[in-house]
Amino acid sequence: MIQPPCGGRPRLRRPGGPKEYCGIFGVYGHPDAAKLTYFGLYALQHRGQESAGIVSSDGKKVSEHRGMGLVADLFDEKTLAGLTGHLALGHVRYSTTGSSLLKNAQPFVVTHGGQVFALGHNGNLTNALSLRQSLEAKGSILQTTMDSEVIVHLLVRHMNGGLVEALQKSLPQAKGAWSLGLMTRDTLVAARDPYGFRPLCLGRLDGGAWVIASETCALDLVEAEYVRDVEPGEIVVINKHGLFSHRLDVQKPHRYCIFECIYFARPDSNIFGHNVYEIRKRMGKKLAQENRDLSADLTLPFPDSGNYAGLGFAQESGIPLEMGVIRNHYVGRTFIQPSQSMRDFGVRVKLNPVASILKGRRVVIVEDSIIRGTTSRTRVKTLREVGAREIHMVVSCPPHRYPCYYGIDFSSKGELIAAQQTVEKVARYVGLDSLRYLSLEGMVEATGFADPTFCLACFNGDYPVPPDENYSKFGLEG
Amino acid sequence: MIQPPCGGRPRLRRPGGPKEYCGIFGVYGHPDAAKLTYFGLYALQHRGQESAGIVSSDGKKVSEHRGMGLVADLFDEKTLAGLTGHLALGHVRYSTTGSSLLKNAQPFVVTHGGQVFALGHNGNLTNALSLRQSLEAKGSILQTTMDSEVIVHLLVRHMNGGLVEALQKSLPQAKGAWSLGLMTRDTLVAARDPYGFRPLCLGRLDGGAWVIASETCALDLVEAEYVRDVEPGEIVVINKHGLFSHRLDVQKPHRYCIFECIYFARPDSNIFGHNVYEIRKRMGKKLAQENRDLSADLTLPFPDSGNYAGLGFAQESGIPLEMGVIRNHYVGRTFIQPSQSMRDFGVRVKLNPVASILKGRRVVIVEDSIIRGTTSRTRVKTLREVGAREIHMVVSCPPHRYPCYYGIDFSSKGELIAAQQTVEKVARYVGLDSLRYLSLEGMVEATGFADPTFCLACFNGDYPVPPDENYSKFGLEG
Amino acid sequence: MIQPPCGGRPRLRRPGGPKEYCGIFGVYGHPDAAKLTYFGLYALQHRGQESAGIVSSDGKKVSEHRGMGLVADLFDEKTLAGLTGHLALGHVRYSTTGSSLLKNAQPFVVTHGGQVFALGHNGNLTNALSLRQSLEAKGSILQTTMDSEVIVHLLVRHMNGGLVEALQKSLPQAKGAWSLGLMTRDTLVAARDPYGFRPLCLGRLDGGAWVIASETCALDLVEAEYVRDVEPGEIVVINKHGLFSHRLDVQKPHRYCIFECIYFARPDSNIFGHNVYEIRKRMGKKLAQENRDLSADLTLPFPDSGNYAGLGFAQESGIPLEMGVIRNHYVGRTFIQPSQSMRDFGVRVKLNPVASILKGRRVVIVEDSIIRGTTSRTRVKTLREVGAREIHMVVSCPPHRYPCYYGIDFSSKGELIAAQQTVEKVARYVGLDSLRYLSLEGMVEATGFADPTFCLACFNGDYPVPPDENYSKFGLEG
Amino acid sequence: MIQPPCGGRPRLRRPGGPKEYCGIFGVYGHPDAAKLTYFGLYALQHRGQESAGIVSSDGKKVSEHRGMGLVADLFDEKTLAGLTGHLALGHVRYSTTGSSLLKNAQPFVVTHGGQVFALGHNGNLTNALSLRQSLEAKGSILQTTMDSEVIVHLLVRHMNGGLVEALQKSLPQAKGAWSLGLMTRDTLVAARDPYGFRPLCLGRLDGGAWVIASETCALDLVEAEYVRDVEPGEIVVINKHGLFSHRLDVQKPHRYCIFECIYFARPDSNIFGHNVYEIRKRMGKKLAQENRDLSADLTLPFPDSGNYAGLGFAQESGIPLEMGVIRNHYVGRTFIQPSQSMRDFGVRVKLNPVASILKGRRVVIVEDSIIRGTTSRTRVKTLREVGAREIHMVVSCPPHRYPCYYGIDFSSKGELIAAQQTVEKVARYVGLDSLRYLSLEGMVEATGFADPTFCLACFNGDYPVPPDENYSKFGLEG
Repeated sequence: MIQPPCGGRPRLRRPGGPKEYCGIFGVYGHPDAAKLTYFGLYALQHRGQESAGIVSSDGKKVSEHRGMGLVADLFDEKTLAGLTGHLALGHVRYSTTGSSLLKNAQPFVVTHGGQVFALGHNGNLTNALSLRQSLEAKGSILQTTMDSEVIVHLLVRHMNGGLVEALQKSLPQAKGAWSLGLMTRDTLVAARDPYGFRPLCLGRLDGGAWVIASETCALDLVEAEYVRDVEPGEIVVINKHGLFSHRLDVQKPHRYCIFECIYFARPDSNIFGHNVYEIRKRMGKKLAQENRDLSADLTLPFPDSGNYAGLGFAQESGIPLEMGVIRNHYVGRTFIQPSQSMRDFGVRVKLNPVASILKGRRVVIVEDSIIRGTTSRTRVKTLREVGAREIHMVVSCPPHRYPCYYGIDFSSKGELIAAQQTVEKVARYVGLDSLRYLSLEGMVEATGFADPTFCLACFNGDYPVPPDENYSKFGLEG
Repeated sequence: MIQPPCGGRPRLRRPGGPKEYCGIFGVYGHPDAAKLTYFGLYALQHRGQESAGIVSSDGKKVSEHRGMGLVADLFDEKTLAGLTGHLALGHVRYSTTGSSLLKNAQPFVVTHGGQVFALGHNGNLTNALSLRQSLEAKGSILQTTMDSEVIVHLLVRHMNGGLVEALQKSLPQAKGAWSLGLMTRDTLVAARDPYGFRPLCLGRLDGGAWVIASETCALDLVEAEYVRDVEPGEIVVINKHGLFSHRLDVQKPHRYCIFECIYFARPDSNIFGHNVYEIRKRMGKKLAQENRDLSADLTLPFPDSGNYAGLGFAQESGIPLEMGVIRNHYVGRTFIQPSQSMRDFGVRVKLNPVASILKGRRVVIVEDSIIRGTTSRTRVKTLREVGAREIHMVVSCPPHRYPCYYGIDFSSKGELIAAQQTVEKVARYVGLDSLRYLSLEGMVEATGFADPTFCLACFNGDYPVPPDENYSKFGLEG
Repeated sequence: MIQPPCGGRPRLRRPGGPKEYCGIFGVYGHPDAAKLTYFGLYALQHRGQESAGIVSSDGKKVSEHRGMGLVADLFDEKTLAGLTGHLALGHVRYSTTGSSLLKNAQPFVVTHGGQVFALGHNGNLTNALSLRQSLEAKGSILQTTMDSEVIVHLLVRHMNGGLVEALQKSLPQAKGAWSLGLMTRDTLVAARDPYGFRPLCLGRLDGGAWVIASETCALDLVEAEYVRDVEPGEIVVINKHGLFSHRLDVQKPHRYCIFECIYFARPDSNIFGHNVYEIRKRMGKKLAQENRDLSADLTLPFPDSGNYAGLGFAQESGIPLEMGVIRNHYVGRTFIQPSQSMRDFGVRVKLNPVASILKGRRVVIVEDSIIRGTTSRTRVKTLREVGAREIHMVVSCPPHRYPCYYGIDFSSKGELIAAQQTVEKVARYVGLDSLRYLSLEGMVEATGFADPTFCLACFNGDYPVPPDENYSKFGLEG
Repeated sequence: MIQPPCGGRPRLRRPGGPKEYCGIFGVYGHPDAAKLTYFGLYALQHRGQESAGIVSSDGKKVSEHRGMGLVADLFDEKTLAGLTGHLALGHVRYSTTGSSLLKNAQPFVVTHGGQVFALGHNGNLTNALSLRQSLEAKGSILQTTMDSEVIVHLLVRHMNGGLVEALQKSLPQAKGAWSLGLMTRDTLVAARDPYGFRPLCLGRLDGGAWVIASETCALDLVEAEYVRDVEPGEIVVINKHGLFSHRLDVQKPHRYCIFECIYFARPDSNIFGHNVYEIRKRMGKKLAQENRDLSADLTLPFPDSGNYAGLGFAQESGIPLEMGVIRNHYVGRTFIQPSQSMRDFGVRVKLNPVASILKGRRVVIVEDSIIRGTTSRTRVKTLREVGAREIHMVVSCPPHRYPCYYGIDFSSKGELIAAQQTVEKVARYVGLDSLRYLSLEGMVEATGFADPTFCLACFNGDYPVPPDENYSKFGLEG
């Protein structure tokens, strides 16, 4: 219940340092590289809604357009026509608030020594502050609070030996999670940290232009063929001579972010080699298997994020599915507060339960996760108001008890209700008759992956990369 | 597949004269009347997305705010704070293009003889041109091409005997479909034509303020209790003395618009006294009963309009439901055209089929209606591309063969594919392996209403009110 | 000191009913009629800065664009390209505040009986309320509070006998001041009330297209040749058959507004047949002749409105001219209020006195008029602050003691300081060492016109057309 | 005729590298520092109209607002309310076009080593490219093409010994013209290059808060008392301990830019210790003395830049002044092109000659300078069209024959008509009966300064600081 998956949930403002929720899309070798990138970002919009940008190059001239807001609002035919060239890199970002939001829009672009570097990053560095302090001590000035700027500064300080050598020397200094797209005037680069926390894949258009994307749903939209994932610890360099794969010296065991599977990625994407829709449906099935005792009249997913586990749960349990909460598709950005003389209609503006379906019935809500519990609590309340008799909830992952340092925005234990409370107390707070979480083993089994493939730190506290000592002090803003 | 139901479909631009797709919401007797109206319009946004407006009154001062665009974009705390008073009337509108879109935003407001009249209208008059010509011949100047202005001009010419008498004398002159909300400085009026083509209901807030709304989903949002429908041929007058019901002299048999049930109204609304979600689910069940021979691997609704009939069909047929088409919730207003070197991604921007669910499978699409066939055709094409083996379609109403003169925007036979072609040819055009429509009798039976309650003219050409001779010449614009 | 002449003064918000400060420009017979009209309005911008509009016609299709703001901001190449046709009418307006400013932008356009009427008006009707009440009693609905709408309603009620007959019958009903431009699909009309309060002239482009304009400076800009003034009581009709002059039955003695000469018209215009720059310079000379006793070190005009009388005064008196107040040309619309901890910089933002020119000197300010006295008072204060030793003021007209009912915005006696106070007290209030007004006779003589040609009502209370009894009650807004 | 003096001239787009036309204003020690800075920039708007910015600090929190456009449009009560603190620095800029105009808006702000540096610069470095290359070679990344960024990078590399030492070490590396304002969280700095090309002065508010400003007209507006100029080669540091003056080791002879006196500064400013209005008037007098043989009917300044020399010329020569060209104050940003069927009204949109004053007369135009000759040529043409009999021109400086490297935008010889042609040919090109320039000696004498005080390089090619070898190659954009 953190970040809109495919857009459904309210966009939450969260405290804490810079977050790196992002989507990346790049094209090499197509006359309409920027326009393809526009469509690619469209498909990745769920990975970041606060800012977006596209940088393009024809080999000489570099053009860029970035701004705050949604891809569909930021770009029009005119801005896209100005983004000429066969090479383009795009980025969508969910950033935190700050005094200089626009300058934090990515890709981050600099000119140095006559060359242009544009970088888009998805993930979060755990040693960003140390790197930043070290760069400043050497006389560098950093303009933003973004990890991507830090990476570019590391890079330009190693450019004497050429781009690949610079990447080989600078990227191992960046600890934590980073899937990144880099563009110069004539080259497109895709790289992924040795653990492979965040997804990144490679596609091709009719055997010609190369495409890089955070998720395969973006390949689908531009009708590119999926080729393979960019491997953890791999640097893929694409230029006029072809595609070249390089390996970082440092190699690590894979630690994919399981929350991408549970919630964050789009259900029509394949990530880490598996289809998300099917993973979620299997999680729903597993939930039904682990909770055979649960008896109810209907299975109720909250649209759209609960739909897929909901389907699996209903099919396996035999408790019939009802889409008994209707979503208003016209919810805008401005939120008008009710007056004192009025009740709070906040939830119902977006989601309205169908009374005649729910009244007097025993309901099982299928939910993907409970983070702070507040959203679930309000939703359950509206079901009570229309007369649901019993309300149970099954959650398609274990309780979230540990913060994430790799780019998912539940950064402190204090925000995680399950880190503070027993399951019984969570159920009581949310207003449920019963609450059941999927087991850790059940979840991993449902994915269909071999076991030690995932980072499960938010569930079990086992961090593949420990954060810097001064990690919590990070944050230059204000 | 005409007008976005709860928002899903592309907004089509259609030729022809002024259309009166609309939603109405009004409040009498609440200190935050305009703010409640704002929330009410939010819930009715699916009934019109091109313009919106709210007029309010404190008994003396009348305030208004209208504009082009969505309710959420048009109003903010500041504009709402300016709409003072205990009385408010709001309107959302889907208008056709023209040179003067803004002035056609409703409610239509005039000052006359020291009184203020604000009118919002849902429906379509069949004799608007005759009325307009007659008014001009008497020296009146009309500013807009809206039926609501015609009604106001009729009204003020009868105001000598007071408001109720003026309504009684003027409304019977307006032929066709009209559910309307009218506001003066101190009075709120709701009225419905004798056939009752369009819905309109009455609610109450905690036994205090009165609310009128096109659909009950708007009552739900502001947590008003549903009291009853405004009756066909009834004029409800609300002022400081209470609520008074008057009857037009002319009474007619009820002819509710069945397309409101099939497609137009929100599934969480009750209209004409029945729940829309349940009607649609029963239509899906009836479709399964009428097509027992149909064999397939999965039931596929296109979100969100096909979901409810899809659920009913899957449950009754036993063909399992898959939500195998993913909707992108970030689709914007601007539509970027692909370049010549690119394929057309138009459909996939909004809806992406999940290949791993559909590949090699036999699919039954559940659709609410086929109007021109173009949208269905494009959608079917994307399913073929991801490898669906067989594609069948069941439609939860009979073929549309006749235009509507009462406010639904399929105004000429030429636009209706089923008016031109046999079912087999439609199936071939759309690209289906088979196509089955619900029978007229099955559809009416599924509604749960007694038979001669509905206007079925778009299916059988039996028009309750024949249009004026010069109806087709209507249209002053250009 | 009322209305920006050629733009210099602050735009004042004044209480009271609708004012009709305006400028009119029209073209018949040029392929770029709308673009010429755009340039013409540019030159007439000093006559109204709150809204502007252009309506054009190609004989069949009528196009329009209107809005709030300056001509240069409202129109661009694209909007002008949409205003096709050989016939165009434009209008600039200074309106009062109200709830519906935009709809009050002119030209006022209606469609009636298949014909289109667009009307732009400069002046003020003294019987607008009676006319309005009479029209409403006959069933008409009026949309705005503008006199131009009243005139159009009168017109359409007489259209049976054709346009000229309708003008002959309807215009005499409009009492007061009206110079107007009217356009139908194929005809351009210019007309002026029998007294000729407001200017209106006729020009021609290279012997081809006809042009009508409030002032000749607009002819200059489009390089049209001045032909003659539209005569008081004349109706000029221009269509494909040529230009036709008609006379109203009612003829009256000429009563030109002398304040157009003193202040309102642009100095580079000829109005009522004389050049405004020269009139103002002669007024300055006459001021010097009537005040031979006045001794000072320098003549100081406040730019730009005082410049021309200032030049005449300096040349005749021998007191050297110094342009010792510098005008900031970047003054914007938003006015930021100083904080409590700051002084009020309001005046100095616009006009800064040059201390080294003024310190220790005896100064004669040449001013065109004193209305409320507040602006003069603040300006004099800044001169004192930089150390002027003596400050005298000469004003190029007599004291304003009576309101104007014909379109100049000093509508009540209470606003006119000279109606309340003796000249001595005005001098003291403004902070002057002495104050001298031009005599009524001197002023008229300086114009070079024969004596009983002007309306002098604001100086002597002699009103050519007395206002309606209920004039002061006028004003439907609020 | 280069840059709008006090706003009159058209804003020209010129080719070439980054220009540094600018105005600076800063406040230390006032609770409304940002609001005072807003007013200060208002008064300095003539020094740069393309972008503006204000940075403020309360000792801890630094706030900023920058953007493209005029001060009056960029700031409102809300943005100013967000700029809290007792310390503020503002900047207006005339920049050249480029792909990244907004990021070039000043003050330029960076965070480094926990400190914040904001810098606004007026002038032009002659060795900017060398400095930039040297910084990049050391690993620095520069974000903009502005000299101010170069200065900040030099500064932070010397911060170990504190701010004053860093200024002492870094500023001497910057060659050319720089008057600058620098702000940290708690300190305001004003500094001026050793030659003192550009003005910069120091003022005080009621003996309390300190103010720095490019020109004294900005002190006047906020009613600050002028204290003294910041000296060439001086660094003024203002913080909670008071005001401290430091000297650069490098000292040079003063070389004030004489073009500030002739054209660029506002006439109500005192710069380099003298009043600009009086200097210009004396230049006009000197022109009359050097051209006793010139006989004409009237002296005609083009408003507003020619007014002051015009007054001096008219008084000394006895040829009476006429303000015979009327300026339209409503000229907007958008320029509509005339169509093919129309003449070009470009000049007359802004300036309209009064025919009745000029027809048949012998005219002397008083002009401040002729750069490319095109503007003068068009203006002279309009005077011919209204019938001026003879047209002479006197120019209040010698012919411009050499480019300026210190911040005035006539950067190449090719643009300077007098560098290519004899005076006779210039006169013929412009369309004059005669053309007379002020002599170099006469000009310097008119200023009232001792002789070797000014940089006269644009007239005589004697450059105090020669530009870098690769100066002309400068310009990283594109």
